Amino acid sequence: MRTQVAIIGAGPAGLLLAHLLHRGGVEAVVLETRSQEYVASRIRAGILESSSVELLESAGLGDRLRAEGHEHRGIYLQWPGERHHLDFVDLTGRSVWVYGQTEVQKDLVAAGTAAVFYEVTDVELHDVESDRPYVTFVDAEGASQRLDADAIAGCDGSFGPSRHAVPAQTFERVYPYSWLGILADVAPSTDELIYAWHPNGFALHSMRSETVSRLYLQVPNGTDPASWPDDRIWEELATRLGHGQDGWKLTPGPITDKSVLPMRSYVQTPMRHGRVFLAGDAAHIVPPTGAKGLNLAIADVTLLSRALIALLVSNDATLAGAYSDDALRRVWRCTHFSWWMTTMLHTSGDPFDAQLQLSQLRWVASSEAGARGLAENYAGLPIGF
Amino acid sequence: MRTQVAIIGAGPAGLLLAHLLHRGGVEAVVLETRSQEYVASRIRAGILESSSVELLESAGLGDRLRAEGHEHRGIYLQWPGERHHLDFVDLTGRSVWVYGQTEVQKDLVAAGTAAVFYEVTDVELHDVESDRPYVTFVDAEGASQRLDADAIAGCDGSFGPSRHAVPAQTFERVYPYSWLGILADVAPSTDELIYAWHPNGFALHSMRSETVSRLYLQVPNGTDPASWPDDRIWEELATRLGHGQDGWKLTPGPITDKSVLPMRSYVQTPMRHGRVFLAGDAAHIVPPTGAKGLNLAIADVTLLSRALIALLVSNDATLAGAYSDDALRRVWRCTHFSWWMTTMLHTSGDPFDAQLQLSQLRWVASSEAGARGLAENYAGLPIGF
Repeated sequence: MRTQVAIIGAGPAGLLLAHLLHRGGVEAVVLETRSQEYVASRIRAGILESSSVELLESAGLGDRLRAEGHEHRGIYLQWPGERHHLDFVDLTGRSVWVYGQTEVQKDLVAAGTAAVFYEVTDVELHDVESDRPYVTFVDAEGASQRLDADAIAGCDGSFGPSRHAVPAQTFERVYPYSWLGILADVAPSTDELIYAWHPNGFALHSMRSETVSRLYLQVPNGTDPASWPDDRIWEELATRLGHGQDGWKLTPGPITDKSVLPMRSYVQTPMRHGRVFLAGDAAHIVPPTGAKGLNLAIADVTLLSRALIALLVSNDATLAGAYSDDALRRVWRCTHFSWWMTTMLHTSGDPFDAQLQLSQLRWVASSEAGARGLAENYAGLPIGF
Repeated sequence: MRTQVAIIGAGPAGLLLAHLLHRGGVEAVVLETRSQEYVASRIRAGILESSSVELLESAGLGDRLRAEGHEHRGIYLQWPGERHHLDFVDLTGRSVWVYGQTEVQKDLVAAGTAAVFYEVTDVELHDVESDRPYVTFVDAEGASQRLDADAIAGCDGSFGPSRHAVPAQTFERVYPYSWLGILADVAPSTDELIYAWHPNGFALHSMRSETVSRLYLQVPNGTDPASWPDDRIWEELATRLGHGQDGWKLTPGPITDKSVLPMRSYVQTPMRHGRVFLAGDAAHIVPPTGAKGLNLAIADVTLLSRALIALLVSNDATLAGAYSDDALRRVWRCTHFSWWMTTMLHTSGDPFDAQLQLSQLRWVASSEAGARGLAENYAGLPIGF
C-alpha cells in the first residue's frame, strides 16, 4: 500500500492533519491501535483557544462548534474570600470556546476526509532517514501490511512508537500532585470556568455542556478514586470552590465518571528526524491547568500540514526544515504557561509557596498587565507567532 | 532619658524614620550598635524606585539625588545572542534612579534631624505590650542607659534584637546560589543595568557612578572570593554579559571590593506587637535581584511615620493598627517579584528549568503585557497601593 503521508494515531491531531492534508491535495492514511468507538469516547480536553477555533472554522469544521459550543469571555480566578473575573475579550480581544475534544473528534470523523485503519497492532517505522520511509503493521484482520509513504507523521501520543524514531533530547517535570476529575449530570453552577486556589488544594469547575459539569480536585499522587465517595467529592468541591461565599452555590448531581490524572510536563526536541514529524502528545505533554494540550496539538498539525503540502505538492522543503523550530516556539511558550498556572494554583504544603501564590494571584487580579499576561496566553497566541 | 519614639538601628530605615517623624513634630532617639563610619560606608543597594525618589524629594532629601544620581528609563534583559531594552517610562510612565544607599545615608546624616547614639551595646526592649515601653542599652562610654518612649521602631535588620520582641510566624526560602559582587574603578560599559541569563549562571552589570561599576556573578553557595582572582572575574563577566556580541564590549578595571552575598527570602508576620513596630530588614529580607530591599524599607518607614505621627500627635491609632497589614501587602508583592526575578535569571542546573527560563524571558521581551508586568514591579508601585 502506498500513500503520501502515513499518519500514526487517529486522535484529533492525526485526523485533523489528514483533513488539512486532504484539503491541500495531499493523500494520507491513518493507523490507529484502538477501536473507533474507544477513540471517539475518550474524555479529554474541553477548551478551544481562539486560534484553534479560527483554524477549525477555516478548515470547514466550525459549524457544529458555533452552534453547540459555548463561547466564554474569560475565567474566574479565586482564593478564599475573593473571586475575580478576568475578561479575555476586554484584555486581548480574544475569547475561548467550551467544546469537548470528543466533539472535535466527531466532527473530524463526520468530515470523512481520513482513511483510517483502526485496531492495528505491531506498528513499526522504517527507513525514516530516507525519502521512502514506510510503516509496517498488522491490521484488524490479522494481516501484515506495509504502508509506503513520502513522510510519516507521528500523532500517536506519548505511548506510541513514533517518538522513539526521533533521536531527541528530553525535558521532563513530574508534579507532586494529581487531579481527581469527575463528570456529573448537572448544570454547571457557573457561567465560566472557576480556577480556585485553596489551602486544601486546587479546585476547578469546568463544564462540557448546559447539562454536564466537569470538576477537578487536586489530590496527592497515587490517590485511589475509591477513597473519594461521591459525597466526599461534592463536600470538598464546595469547600474549595467557596459554596456560600457571597451567596454562590455549588449544585451537586450524579457523578458519571471519576478518574485520577497524574500531571507532568514533557518536551522532546527536535520534533523531526528525516521524514518523521511529531505532532501533539507524541512530542510534548503539558499539565492540564490552562487547557493547552489539545490546542498545542492543533497548532502543531496546522504548521505540519503547511510544511507537508509545500514539500509534497510544491517540492519546497523550507517549511519542513523549519517545522521543529517553529512548533517548539509555541510548545515552550505553552509549556511555560502551563507550568506557571499549575505552580501558581496547586498547594505544595510549603507556607512560603502559599504566600507567593496568593501574592501573585492578587497581582494578576488587580494589575491590568498581570491580567493581560494570563489572558493572552490562555486565549492563545496566533499560530506561527 | 525620655523620647517619643525609640528607634533601633541607624541605617537608612532608622534615619529616614527619624527624619520623617521630626518633620511631623514627633521626637525620636536612634540607637546603633555600629560606628557612624561603619554604617556610612556599608556597600548596599543602589537603585531607587519611582516612589522612593518621590518620598525622598517630598521629605526635602532630593537635591543631591537629582544633581548626582542618574535616572534610568529601564533595564536590559539578555540571554545568549539577544539583548532587549525594557523602557519602564514607555511602559508605566515611571523611571528608576541609580543612587547608592551610601549616598542616601549621607543625605540623612547631613539633614541632622536624628539624635543618634552610635556604638551602643546590650540593647534590650522592655514592656513592649504597655503604653510605656523602654529600651535599655550601654552607651559608647560604657554607661548603662534607659530610654523611655511611647513606641519603639525596630529598624535594626535581621541580626538586631527588635524582631525577637514580636511573636511572629516566619516564612523563609534559601536559594542554592550566591552573588560574587565587585566594585571596580572603571566607567560602566553600559548606560543602564544589564540582567543577563547565561548557561554558566546569572550576571548583572550595575553601576554606582560615571566612574564606578558594580558587577555580579552567580556562584555556588559557600564560594570563597579568593578562588576568583580578578582576571577570572572579568573573563567570566565578559562571557556571561556577551562581550563581542553585536560589537558590545565589557571594559575591565581595578577591582576595589570583592565579596560573596548569600541570597534568601524571609518574611515575618505581623510587623507589629503592642508598641513595637518593625520596618525594613528587621521584618523581611529579599534576594537582591530586582533591587527591592532598600525600596521596601523606605516604603515601610513612610507608612510607619504616618502611623506614629497620627498616634502620637493626633492620638489616632487607626493607621498604627493597620500598619502591619498595609506594609505586608507591599512586602509580599515585592517578595514575590524578587523571587520571580531571581528564579527566572539564575540557573539551577536542571535543563527543564533552563528552557522555562528562556521561554519566559522571550515572552517578557516580546509581549507588551509581559514587559509591563516586570516594569511596573521594578519601577515600583505607589506607596500604600
